[in-house]
Amino acid sequence: MAKNVGILAMDIYFPLTCIQQEVLEAHDGASKGKYTIGLGQDCMAFCTEVEDVISMSLTVVTSLLEKYGVDPKQIGRLEVGSETVIDKSKSIKTFLMGIFEVYAEGPARPTGGAAAIAILIGPDAPISFESKVRGSHMAHVYDFYKPNLASEYPVVDGKLSQTCYLMALDSCYKQMCNKYEKLEGKQFSLSDADYFVFHSPYNKLVQKSFARLLYDDFLRNASSIDEAAKEKLGPFSTLSGDESYQSRDLEKVTQQLAKSLYNAKVQPTTLIPKQVGNMYTASLYAAFASLIHNKNSALAGKRVILFSYGSGSSATMFSLQLREGQHPFSLSNIANVMDVARKLKSRHEFPPDKFVETMHLMEHRYGAKDFVTSKDISLLSPGTYYLTEVDSMYRRFYAKKDGDSTTGTPCENGSLVNGQ
Amino acid sequence: MAKNVGILAMDIYFPLTCIQQEVLEAHDGASKGKYTIGLGQDCMAFCTEVEDVISMSLTVVTSLLEKYGVDPKQIGRLEVGSETVIDKSKSIKTFLMGIFEVYAEGPARPTGGAAAIAILIGPDAPISFESKVRGSHMAHVYDFYKPNLASEYPVVDGKLSQTCYLMALDSCYKQMCNKYEKLEGKQFSLSDADYFVFHSPYNKLVQKSFARLLYDDFLRNASSIDEAAKEKLGPFSTLSGDESYQSRDLEKVTQQLAKSLYNAKVQPTTLIPKQVGNMYTASLYAAFASLIHNKNSALAGKRVILFSYGSGSSATMFSLQLREGQHPFSLSNIANVMDVARKLKSRHEFPPDKFVETMHLMEHRYGAKDFVTSKDISLLSPGTYYLTEVDSMYRRFYAKKDGDSTTGTPCENGSLVNGQ
Repeated sequence: MAKNVGILAMDIYFPLTCIQQEVLEAHDGASKGKYTIGLGQDCMAFCTEVEDVISMSLTVVTSLLEKYGVDPKQIGRLEVGSETVIDKSKSIKTFLMGIFEVYAEGPARPTGGAAAIAILIGPDAPISFESKVRGSHMAHVYDFYKPNLASEYPVVDGKLSQTCYLMALDSCYKQMCNKYEKLEGKQFSLSDADYFVFHSPYNKLVQKSFARLLYDDFLRNASSIDEAAKEKLGPFSTLSGDESYQSRDLEKVTQQLAKSLYNAKVQPTTLIPKQVGNMYTASLYAAFASLIHNKNSALAGKRVILFSYGSGSSATMFSLQLREGQHPFSLSNIANVMDVARKLKSRHEFPPDKFVETMHLMEHRYGAKDFVTSKDISLLSPGTYYLTEVDSMYRRFYAKKDGDSTTGTPCENGSLVNGQ
Repeated sequence: MAKNVGILAMDIYFPLTCIQQEVLEAHDGASKGKYTIGLGQDCMAFCTEVEDVISMSLTVVTSLLEKYGVDPKQIGRLEVGSETVIDKSKSIKTFLMGIFEVYAEGPARPTGGAAAIAILIGPDAPISFESKVRGSHMAHVYDFYKPNLASEYPVVDGKLSQTCYLMALDSCYKQMCNKYEKLEGKQFSLSDADYFVFHSPYNKLVQKSFARLLYDDFLRNASSIDEAAKEKLGPFSTLSGDESYQSRDLEKVTQQLAKSLYNAKVQPTTLIPKQVGNMYTASLYAAFASLIHNKNSALAGKRVILFSYGSGSSATMFSLQLREGQHPFSLSNIANVMDVARKLKSRHEFPPDKFVETMHLMEHRYGAKDFVTSKDISLLSPGTYYLTEVDSMYRRFYAKKDGDSTTGTPCENGSLVNGQ
């Protein structure tokens, strides 16, 4: 039996094109702090016309394989998770096949953030799953959905969405605690994990979520809640579930009580989501990547709890055990390879008018066919895949920017098709 | 370790509304036999305005649980496969959550056929996977895809689609044979399995596919090919791969040589696909359901090879070992529960003008909001879920037709949302 199955390697890609939330606030005529404090966000990445969800996937998968020296033939199974549908039938995975067969080439779209993460799973991993410590929750809810297939925008019930998220969080946490207790014979509390990583559409929800777990610990009479905290939370002990999701007072008190614990156990996970924006499926792992970036080898011996959430809704909370591991599959090498600081520094900040102009072009292009892109790749890093053309049959063609992380010259992804 | 993990139980649902291919031929002004012989199809099921992919999933999952006496709490994992996207973000699975929590309620669309299959996987199964005997193939091809998100119709390159299918078939078969030979120390050929079941968009392709496997056996010098066959296939031994996919002569000769083997090993699997039409994801399992319907307990001790294919493309060939098993999870009870003969008999044949009228309404309704359906459920069986309304927020509501396979009264699926 394979042991310590888990994350062997990771890489993250986010577009180098971004806009500061502070600048966007001013441009949108929003009150100062509405985005930066109200949402807790610092900066937002977006794709220009030359990138999309397929190109980002191609970029990050290729990069992971190259940087860790992994032969594509060693990969037994490929899973692709994405919030964004480019084609209702043809899967993103099929676009990645070139990487695993003929080294062919490969797209990104903007909705408040964009990024792609590649993760290699295998035995003897530095980051292994505690497979028995987990909780899952699914419900049929209309919190965030995309029923208008011709539109790139979702239908969102913001308030409902937040409540659904917190309900799923409560449910997963309780289940996970129950399983832990059956397994270990003692109660689980916030004290039993070193870090908590959340699906992060915007940072404020992460703050609220961690505070919610503290309230859950209070209701469960867990050891993490001291006498002073118990006293402050006393007035909220009789709230119904629904009341507790709506209470501003409870939110305020729990966030205040959770503050120092938040700074220690959550804050190190928030860098990329705050700087890049909502990455949908990638967002949880971008938060985890932030933790590895910030703490590096110091994570050896630590337990990290992750909370994954998808609207509609489907959620899982699970536990990871970390150790340094062997090069190239070690915590410190994963941090080296992801190279988050350099990537954040090499971004290009757009002024609002240029950002809005780009968004208009993207809306116009959404679902369109028979066009070529500008092929302006001056803002992309070497090794990045980009969209060159969508032909009259809606077939998408990609090329790869030359540079040190690659050896070939740009070529068209469609060669496999045309060659048949 | 769990043993004999595989299919414990199955049920199939297809709309009771259908049109004869012969009638459609005449109505379309197509030459006689174009659909019935050219495609090998007999009849086509379609959804009227009251059914869709969600209602069909609700119907068949509920039916499986009830008919086999399975408590929803016993289900550890739910997988939903579908070719059809109703919402780009909210998954079909979330609509099924009511079944597993509060027994809430739930849709089907027409593109040359429609059906839903529910399959229960577990240990000590009458139908178990030979997990080491399989081959997989993925490629980046534009054979059949749905890039126009606002349209319910795909872009199809028919000729390319067929070639891609056959290439994937060759590749999977070769890999599977290699694995079998490593495992068993002897060559695999068509003689080593009792039945072959194919992804069945239309029956003619199934005929071609089985004939192709015979050609593969010839090229592999396998024992299934006798001297007379070798002589007839001799002239084709030097064809390039591409030539072999295009050769009409080869197709004719192999189909002729394969005829008696086809009648024994494939024909019993073709009933439902020929009678219902293209069921996309469900089509392979509908073919397998046909086999169980036709052969019942006589399948005990047999090996069945399945070939799964999805455009884009992604394919797997795998092997099943069958035994009678214990009631209710036995071959004969699965055949009883699926009750294919009665379901086929209770269908309503539409005349072409009424069929075309229904299709027009469905095109008009596609992606639409703010409407109620006729709620005419006279053509549905008791226990069938149906669409009642899509509100101004695109939220979909379903009810369940009263009858013996259910106890509750129709209620709205949205209650879970509204109740929060």
